[in-house]
Amino acid sequence: MSSNVQHSLKNIMEPKAIAVIGASTSPGKIGFEVLRNIVEGKFQGDIYPVNPKGGEVLGLKFYSSVLEVPSTPELAVIITPARVVPKIIEECGVRGVKGAVVISAGFSEVGNFKLEEELVRTARKYNVRIIGPNSAGVVNTECNLYACLEYRVNPGSISLISQSGAIGGVLFSYARASKVGFNKFISCGNSCDVDEVEALEYLASDEGTSVITLYLESLKRGRLFLKVAKRVSSVKPVLVLKGGLSSAGLRAVASHTGSIATSHDIYRGAFKQAKVLQVSSLEELFDAAKALALQPLLSNKRIAIITNSGGPGVLVTDACERNGLMVPEPSEDLKKRLSEILPPICSIKNPIDLTAAANYELYFKVLKVILFSGEFDGVIVIFVPPSFVDSLKIAKAVVDVKRLSNKIPIIACWLYGDMVESAVSFLESNGIPNISSPTRIARVMRLLLDYHVIMSGVRY
Amino acid sequence: MSSNVQHSLKNIMEPKAIAVIGASTSPGKIGFEVLRNIVEGKFQGDIYPVNPKGGEVLGLKFYSSVLEVPSTPELAVIITPARVVPKIIEECGVRGVKGAVVISAGFSEVGNFKLEEELVRTARKYNVRIIGPNSAGVVNTECNLYACLEYRVNPGSISLISQSGAIGGVLFSYARASKVGFNKFISCGNSCDVDEVEALEYLASDEGTSVITLYLESLKRGRLFLKVAKRVSSVKPVLVLKGGLSSAGLRAVASHTGSIATSHDIYRGAFKQAKVLQVSSLEELFDAAKALALQPLLSNKRIAIITNSGGPGVLVTDACERNGLMVPEPSEDLKKRLSEILPPICSIKNPIDLTAAANYELYFKVLKVILFSGEFDGVIVIFVPPSFVDSLKIAKAVVDVKRLSNKIPIIACWLYGDMVESAVSFLESNGIPNISSPTRIARVMRLLLDYHVIMSGVRY
Repeated sequence: MSSNVQHSLKNIMEPKAIAVIGASTSPGKIGFEVLRNIVEGKFQGDIYPVNPKGGEVLGLKFYSSVLEVPSTPELAVIITPARVVPKIIEECGVRGVKGAVVISAGFSEVGNFKLEEELVRTARKYNVRIIGPNSAGVVNTECNLYACLEYRVNPGSISLISQSGAIGGVLFSYARASKVGFNKFISCGNSCDVDEVEALEYLASDEGTSVITLYLESLKRGRLFLKVAKRVSSVKPVLVLKGGLSSAGLRAVASHTGSIATSHDIYRGAFKQAKVLQVSSLEELFDAAKALALQPLLSNKRIAIITNSGGPGVLVTDACERNGLMVPEPSEDLKKRLSEILPPICSIKNPIDLTAAANYELYFKVLKVILFSGEFDGVIVIFVPPSFVDSLKIAKAVVDVKRLSNKIPIIACWLYGDMVESAVSFLESNGIPNISSPTRIARVMRLLLDYHVIMSGVRY
Repeated sequence: MSSNVQHSLKNIMEPKAIAVIGASTSPGKIGFEVLRNIVEGKFQGDIYPVNPKGGEVLGLKFYSSVLEVPSTPELAVIITPARVVPKIIEECGVRGVKGAVVISAGFSEVGNFKLEEELVRTARKYNVRIIGPNSAGVVNTECNLYACLEYRVNPGSISLISQSGAIGGVLFSYARASKVGFNKFISCGNSCDVDEVEALEYLASDEGTSVITLYLESLKRGRLFLKVAKRVSSVKPVLVLKGGLSSAGLRAVASHTGSIATSHDIYRGAFKQAKVLQVSSLEELFDAAKALALQPLLSNKRIAIITNSGGPGVLVTDACERNGLMVPEPSEDLKKRLSEILPPICSIKNPIDLTAAANYELYFKVLKVILFSGEFDGVIVIFVPPSFVDSLKIAKAVVDVKRLSNKIPIIACWLYGDMVESAVSFLESNGIPNISSPTRIARVMRLLLDYHVIMSGVRY
């Protein structure tokens, strides 16, 4: 990683003071909403709203220009009309501002290439690094920085680089419904200066980030991206969702970011070579990031499924096999030990079905035996809540066993949504990801294996 | 449909009085929880708890046996220990009870074939029809009947036949998070008497049911099922999720319901011939049922996508093409009309991107032009909520346009979960299904086309 990149992006992502240029007093205007997000998000440094009209906003004094603010902000967030952005960047340069997030739209994405070129020229001249234009902003939950159009998100160790702000918004909504959150978000917009490659390099060495997720539509520096991604993948997992894989999708990308993506086969092959984990939906991107952030990797294919209900056990089993995993029967010895624990009504094959007999004790004992048996590489624990069993207690059994050993991945599948909310919160707060879909949980286990293969070089 | 089936299942599904045999006073026991579900669900007929111990429960008097209850109940719900069930059925027969739902477990599913045979023999002798044993119960939201282990569900026109009670529970939780609910639920359990075939025949002519969903693990009368399904499919859509498609899944099925499923290829081919819509996940089962319950069918492949954000538009486009649908550009004439409505910053190709300019008026006008253009067979409307646009207002635009014409399907994709809850409720209460996943929404559109092909015989 070049320390230059580190330095440039640190100014933007970890500023001590921010100027918000084009801040407005009118709720509903982007210039007001972004400022509100920063203020209500409780940014820990100084905030300088800039607007020549003067006055006050959200308890803060307006400055007439960035030249007038009391200390040099590391970061300028720009929400002015597009045509004045180059001039604003020039002022930022003169004032010594090192980085700018340009939320203003109306550049290359609508064919206004000249204005974007002028912006880049000015930025280079004054050595101001730019994220955007047409960016949804940046987030760093470690310093409560929400310089962003998107709703705020709970903190965590997943970071996101996105060529679409709204994709960030969707993933943030998944995180808010979970206990696993985001660390940093970089909405690249038109990537006129800082692009995915630099953002990736920055996150690679960022301590707060344990998993890097990307939404990509096109890559201007494709070869370099793949080279860097390969290096980063050996340090932390890199998950990519590629938009624009179909022919109509390509056309959509062209009108969205003004650039042309190439064939999806080329991307698929290239991502594989770059040891990047490619996913095929937003749900999968978040599921996998959550599991990778919380759990050890899957070192081989043998999955144990523990359940209190047949149907969901069958569906998870089907999905595991569809994803190239195995759901083998326990050995005779292990079956014997399980049958000593379990009432005869239970199935000791795999899935191990605790049936209506399921309680804290049975889940705890069976899970412990499975975990230490050496016969399985990963465990999926399913629970559906009969009204007479406390779903939180069963969640505690999983967490209690997990404390005894963290060598193999355990993923929970607490079903019935609204009826298990507190149990799911408890699980995820204690490091057990919950994925409430039999189909999606198997896919995530597969990705935990795929990343193990990347890290170890061993193929299965 | 045989009117015999009609008659038998009407007694069970639309009873005027119910005996709850094995009802208990102890919260946490199944005998209490099922009774509570019936009482708290506000069943509109008489409820007779039966337990020889006597006393009261939930404000109702216990009867010592079904022979003592004051009027003949059409339905007996049985939650006693397995070994006494045949004797209970005999008493039911003597009393004139026409149908029983046996929730008690411990029959063929645990190898106790003899007891199940005795149960069937007794039932046949007294002409009592049986659902179960090992059933999770039945639900009919039209008469507030929740004779069931599963949590209650909001009413609607989707009905479910399931070989797993918990699968019903999962689908009910999806419904509770939606405005589209269930009409009837039949948990077959071991299907010792009434099976999937009869249940299907009953729902086929049930007026309250507009869409039939099934979760199947195995079929004892496979050929007959397929024959009946083919007939039913010409009346209303039949959606099937088949569990046990993998080899380990087959083993799991064997321990779950005590029967052996055959190869998944045979099932796939057979379902196709029977004009049944086969889905591959629980999410897809509910998504598709919701759309089929609310929307007209997709008569050809041309999908228009209207969005206020590029990224989600790209992902929906990709998913449409992956599902064999088309996202064609509008004709020159239509583009001209769109460009008269939209500011130049918007994309008038397809996806039609209203960008940050999106408001009620633009969504309404564009949607109306698209709907009446004759150039598209279905519309997907995407919305991500910037904090300054009211997501409910945009939802109103969709509902208002839909009122002008209901000829082609419109599906909404309001993203950002917690931030759009009231808008999604409004959409679904007004007949527009919301599917908050770019990947899943395209799959549902495809199923609307597949059912059109089934109904019309035209292939695309």
